[in-house]
Amino acid sequence: MSTQLTPDAVTVLDRLAIEVPSWAYGNSGTRFKVFTTPGTPRDPYEKIADAAQVHAHTGLAPEVAIHIPWDLVDDYDALSAFAAEQGVGIGTVNSNTFQDDDFKFGGLTHEDAVIRRKAVDHHLACIDIMDATGSRDLKIWLADGSNYPGQTDLRGRQDRLHESLQEIYARLSGDQRLVLEYKFFEPAFYHTDVPDWGTSYAQVTALGDRAMVCLDTGHHAPGTNIEFIVMQLLRLGRLGSFDFNSRFYADDDLIVGAADPFQLFRILFEVIRGGGMDEGTPVAFMLDQCHNIEDKVPGQIRSVLNVQEMTARALLVDHEALRAAQVAGDVLGANAVFMDAFQSDVRPALAEYREARGLPADPMAAYAGSGYRERIVADRVGGTQASWGA
Amino acid sequence: MSTQLTPDAVTVLDRLAIEVPSWAYGNSGTRFKVFTTPGTPRDPYEKIADAAQVHAHTGLAPEVAIHIPWDLVDDYDALSAFAAEQGVGIGTVNSNTFQDDDFKFGGLTHEDAVIRRKAVDHHLACIDIMDATGSRDLKIWLADGSNYPGQTDLRGRQDRLHESLQEIYARLSGDQRLVLEYKFFEPAFYHTDVPDWGTSYAQVTALGDRAMVCLDTGHHAPGTNIEFIVMQLLRLGRLGSFDFNSRFYADDDLIVGAADPFQLFRILFEVIRGGGMDEGTPVAFMLDQCHNIEDKVPGQIRSVLNVQEMTARALLVDHEALRAAQVAGDVLGANAVFMDAFQSDVRPALAEYREARGLPADPMAAYAGSGYRERIVADRVGGTQASWGA
Amino acid sequence: MSTQLTPDAVTVLDRLAIEVPSWAYGNSGTRFKVFTTPGTPRDPYEKIADAAQVHAHTGLAPEVAIHIPWDLVDDYDALSAFAAEQGVGIGTVNSNTFQDDDFKFGGLTHEDAVIRRKAVDHHLACIDIMDATGSRDLKIWLADGSNYPGQTDLRGRQDRLHESLQEIYARLSGDQRLVLEYKFFEPAFYHTDVPDWGTSYAQVTALGDRAMVCLDTGHHAPGTNIEFIVMQLLRLGRLGSFDFNSRFYADDDLIVGAADPFQLFRILFEVIRGGGMDEGTPVAFMLDQCHNIEDKVPGQIRSVLNVQEMTARALLVDHEALRAAQVAGDVLGANAVFMDAFQSDVRPALAEYREARGLPADPMAAYAGSGYRERIVADRVGGTQASWGA
Amino acid sequence: MSTQLTPDAVTVLDRLAIEVPSWAYGNSGTRFKVFTTPGTPRDPYEKIADAAQVHAHTGLAPEVAIHIPWDLVDDYDALSAFAAEQGVGIGTVNSNTFQDDDFKFGGLTHEDAVIRRKAVDHHLACIDIMDATGSRDLKIWLADGSNYPGQTDLRGRQDRLHESLQEIYARLSGDQRLVLEYKFFEPAFYHTDVPDWGTSYAQVTALGDRAMVCLDTGHHAPGTNIEFIVMQLLRLGRLGSFDFNSRFYADDDLIVGAADPFQLFRILFEVIRGGGMDEGTPVAFMLDQCHNIEDKVPGQIRSVLNVQEMTARALLVDHEALRAAQVAGDVLGANAVFMDAFQSDVRPALAEYREARGLPADPMAAYAGSGYRERIVADRVGGTQASWGA
Repeated sequence: MSTQLTPDAVTVLDRLAIEVPSWAYGNSGTRFKVFTTPGTPRDPYEKIADAAQVHAHTGLAPEVAIHIPWDLVDDYDALSAFAAEQGVGIGTVNSNTFQDDDFKFGGLTHEDAVIRRKAVDHHLACIDIMDATGSRDLKIWLADGSNYPGQTDLRGRQDRLHESLQEIYARLSGDQRLVLEYKFFEPAFYHTDVPDWGTSYAQVTALGDRAMVCLDTGHHAPGTNIEFIVMQLLRLGRLGSFDFNSRFYADDDLIVGAADPFQLFRILFEVIRGGGMDEGTPVAFMLDQCHNIEDKVPGQIRSVLNVQEMTARALLVDHEALRAAQVAGDVLGANAVFMDAFQSDVRPALAEYREARGLPADPMAAYAGSGYRERIVADRVGGTQASWGA
Repeated sequence: MSTQLTPDAVTVLDRLAIEVPSWAYGNSGTRFKVFTTPGTPRDPYEKIADAAQVHAHTGLAPEVAIHIPWDLVDDYDALSAFAAEQGVGIGTVNSNTFQDDDFKFGGLTHEDAVIRRKAVDHHLACIDIMDATGSRDLKIWLADGSNYPGQTDLRGRQDRLHESLQEIYARLSGDQRLVLEYKFFEPAFYHTDVPDWGTSYAQVTALGDRAMVCLDTGHHAPGTNIEFIVMQLLRLGRLGSFDFNSRFYADDDLIVGAADPFQLFRILFEVIRGGGMDEGTPVAFMLDQCHNIEDKVPGQIRSVLNVQEMTARALLVDHEALRAAQVAGDVLGANAVFMDAFQSDVRPALAEYREARGLPADPMAAYAGSGYRERIVADRVGGTQASWGA
Repeated sequence: MSTQLTPDAVTVLDRLAIEVPSWAYGNSGTRFKVFTTPGTPRDPYEKIADAAQVHAHTGLAPEVAIHIPWDLVDDYDALSAFAAEQGVGIGTVNSNTFQDDDFKFGGLTHEDAVIRRKAVDHHLACIDIMDATGSRDLKIWLADGSNYPGQTDLRGRQDRLHESLQEIYARLSGDQRLVLEYKFFEPAFYHTDVPDWGTSYAQVTALGDRAMVCLDTGHHAPGTNIEFIVMQLLRLGRLGSFDFNSRFYADDDLIVGAADPFQLFRILFEVIRGGGMDEGTPVAFMLDQCHNIEDKVPGQIRSVLNVQEMTARALLVDHEALRAAQVAGDVLGANAVFMDAFQSDVRPALAEYREARGLPADPMAAYAGSGYRERIVADRVGGTQASWGA
Repeated sequence: MSTQLTPDAVTVLDRLAIEVPSWAYGNSGTRFKVFTTPGTPRDPYEKIADAAQVHAHTGLAPEVAIHIPWDLVDDYDALSAFAAEQGVGIGTVNSNTFQDDDFKFGGLTHEDAVIRRKAVDHHLACIDIMDATGSRDLKIWLADGSNYPGQTDLRGRQDRLHESLQEIYARLSGDQRLVLEYKFFEPAFYHTDVPDWGTSYAQVTALGDRAMVCLDTGHHAPGTNIEFIVMQLLRLGRLGSFDFNSRFYADDDLIVGAADPFQLFRILFEVIRGGGMDEGTPVAFMLDQCHNIEDKVPGQIRSVLNVQEMTARALLVDHEALRAAQVAGDVLGANAVFMDAFQSDVRPALAEYREARGLPADPMAAYAGSGYRERIVADRVGGTQASWGA
């Protein structure tokens, strides 16, 4: 009596693609310490090579998100060609206005027009890169905020944010999109300029149809029902992308599904419910994680597998039985239908699914046995290991 | 060297009016116990009489919010006339769709059209009462939600909520408004149908210009920057009303300013900054509190005084000095200007302010010395004390 | 390839017993509303009859915890005999010092010696009942606390608590124990007198060896690592009992495992790791839940099954492989061993396990098909339905 | 009608001393970015020089806490002599076992005896430094913990922690003390080895009388009543030291009193209530802050002033009136006495108090006018600015 995948579920799983972030392959850490790891990439090419391993063993990660300036190169055609050779493409372009001394007090929201100009220009440069790589999405996460009450004028910053975004949005062409991420805390401690989905939603609707909200699963206050927000943004037509990760308390950026697998199940259930895995979905799925203490490539493989597994479980939900129980006000019955899917073990079925597609049944073991790690440890000697600062 | 009120500050303070809720004068408690108190009102008339005491001693509370069906009477003209005799008016009308067995699984969002009809009709009946009392605002707080994942279809409920609200909104006339309150938790534990300002905002903007958001200061997840939301809703033109109270953890409904006076200061600063205390402000200020263990009338007096005091402190902020420090990126300087206002003691100046208006310098002492409490304890013998259920 | 239970796991599962609380069969609710349910017990006998259903269908709940005064009867021999007839016994006795007007400002900690006396006496009376029923544990949960800073003297209350507990503890005989529950919030909002495990631990160690800590899974601040506390209390030899339930935000008292099944898994893993399921364990497992909107008897059946299922999953952890990975600093490997157990589906194996013991493979279906619910709905007409207040 | 300091209050204020941490004068930041500041110290001598400015202008900070290895020097006699010349002393010695690659998976709790040895030895070396500097306290904050469930054996780590601490404790001599800090989150995300006061208390009581708990005001889960813990630890005789700072969400390490001045007031009230400001108090008061974006020396001056101001307000509480109201169950009355002290403006009285002691009435202005900042900006050119890593 083994759990099987339905044909419809297989169709959805075939469609599932999760972008991996180039920066997950570099070193990361906390304010206390960034530990180094043998074999860590020294440049964007090596990051892409590592990312390609994830796709090679899982078939789930055809695109690599890049971060500018961390992934600045002279020639994006060359980078794209290299990626293609590795079997992947360049995905979302992520901007960065938090590591330049000029941005100490903000970028797109800064009081000083000169610094705002610089921040806007950085985004325009990102769009130039998108033009070169063929990326669809410009993702903007703002570190702007303040640490002390009174430090800044909350309202003025919001108005300046709108103006800055307008200029960036106007530069998009074709089917390019702007996705605006929200985060309620860190690196600013008193206020952040886009703290919640409401603010992101209000800002993007003021721009136009190709401006969307990015939901990072780690960017909410405790107790927040994240799947509700997923439902609402899909309902409002503004869920542009996910940054998947998990957390126990703050923005831990742990492996997605590691802290609360049931929450991931509920989120993916709402994604499916709201059409977010339909053909032509507007939702880009992406990881945004740190592998501070664990190996990075297998950390990423584990992550995309977690999303795949929970998607498969969410696809098991018997919608007819669920609706019947919901309509009948049968609380325990509806919950039981829901939990039955979550409690089922889809791993054997997924192993078969993979093998049928020429992929390893156990991608973690396949990677471990591939010798790749040993190779990069041996090869990548000298140079400066990539990290958030490079 | 005493803190003085500027003429501009006095103008704002003269305008300040805080609605008091009729239900604050009845008994309230927790799920564990509702303690009774001698002198507790037995009917809406006695509640209004108590509420009038607050205004009589403070000049701050000219209107009393009512709750239907708790404050159902046969004749609203008589109730209004009685209120007028007491020196107050009838304010916001609050609906209740959480205490009827039919609403066990929701009201405006219910799966069953018959029960939705009943919930909508309850709101239409509230508008009839508004027509009779001349109230401007219909405040809707939904207890709708669910306790278990899978229990209900989150998306369907949101769509039904929109339909129900549309019908209610359509019934408004003149300058009547609908204000939609949000709350992230309780009495439903897994999800609530209007959990955050974003949802309330999305729902009210789909209705029309006279639909607004109500911000209850106790209805946010821990760590939420409430003054940011105040700023944003004022910026978006959708802050309709406040439900003031304070809390340490959940929806404690304690005396406003009791748990974190500095937060109240910051909120009121943003209200002023955003025009929320300007002539003709769209913002209705109101208490929504429980006096589970303390005396109710003085609890309410304390509450409106807390709002007045923190408003006066917020009005002390030297905006020129603040802007100069903000523009200069002087973090400590800007914070110091802000804190200087908060740390100042406005109580002597407010005592003078009150006396100049024929009010007692110390409203708490004046009430205590008035003999009112002794009178109601002696008079209100027998009958059923009002509480949330009556 | 089905998940099997090892003989060792079966031994532990055979030992597993979870007390059910008599009050779970009565009505409960929130401060907003207590909904009634057809068939709800009207007296302690009917509660025990309902509780016996849980044991009959699961074999997991041989004892029923009672709450005094909610379960006051004239003759405890008769009650015990009735329970025995139903196939269950009387378990932990729970005291209540929160529903008498005298306890408005506390019981065991009260300023007034007369009221402290009354609270102590209530506990002595509970021990009398324990003598009659043969119960081992007196569980004390204090509602004592305050709502406003300054309202009370935190330190004095702690000292008085110690004195009160000493007197109660001195009255215990044989192998009777006192277990002290902690809770960080509610019904008091500013402070509770036993807010955390540290306070409970300090208080019980000051009493003697038969004073233990009770851990209620819903009584912690957000972000608390509960399994760590389980580990620590077992290490210190002071984990006396569990009150199982689950919660999304506050003390929701939902079905255990409903909100975060992985957390329940982690907790049970630490229980096993620390010897809490060994022969002669000092840990009493108990439910403490509210079934506000769902049916109560099946809600309880679901709950004990959830504990059993997660215990079975926790017993699957391959300790040798886990230790090897831990010692090697293999973060992903150790986590994978741990998660493998959690992700496995033990339900088919548990169905077989039940059948081998003459129990229904599917207790939920068995109860639904038993006609019990229809019987109590038909029989229990008139009278006053039991709830927290009766 | 100005607020006056009573003679008793003055006695306490004269006794108040707050250690400042050497690392507050170096650069700090978040995982995203550490901003540099002109004039930042390059070595421990320059840090002490900066720290001495705080004392020179406030009279509140006679000692400087150091952090090893950040403040390693060849000759501690020379460092002490330099400090003395600047008018300050060397205070608490803080250990660091989180910035060496060997400590990636822990130090005092590590699986590997070789690494535990290294961590213990680091602490023994710290005690050697204490012997040289005459410092009383060794403060241990552990970064030990794990990021993923299953990664490590929680129980074994606790036992190893005990063994390691025992060896360190045994090395103390004279009136030297060990203070063990707790923190519920960060840099480890799933579990920390000393997450709460209960764990620290259990560990230090297992050591002996000179082992105490350190309470960092930023290291608690949301909703925690910190002043209750202060009360409890003073009651149990184990409150050894404070690390003052403030936070809005996580371990923000903002200026103490910046986020919630009323909380600081309540904490200091309990300190006084519990004898923590009595002659010969066991409690060491200390700052532990980061000045990521604001100037560091004035940030520290602001901080010690905030503690002084809130101490002065807490000393205003009319204890007789408070007790009377508490005993009478007069909730509003007791709260009013408490709040009256908090709402009073002690700043003019403190300005006089300072002037009477030959200190500047306005230390912030005095520092700003002293030319010190301009001097260090001009002088400290070249070299490597101190930060957490150096």
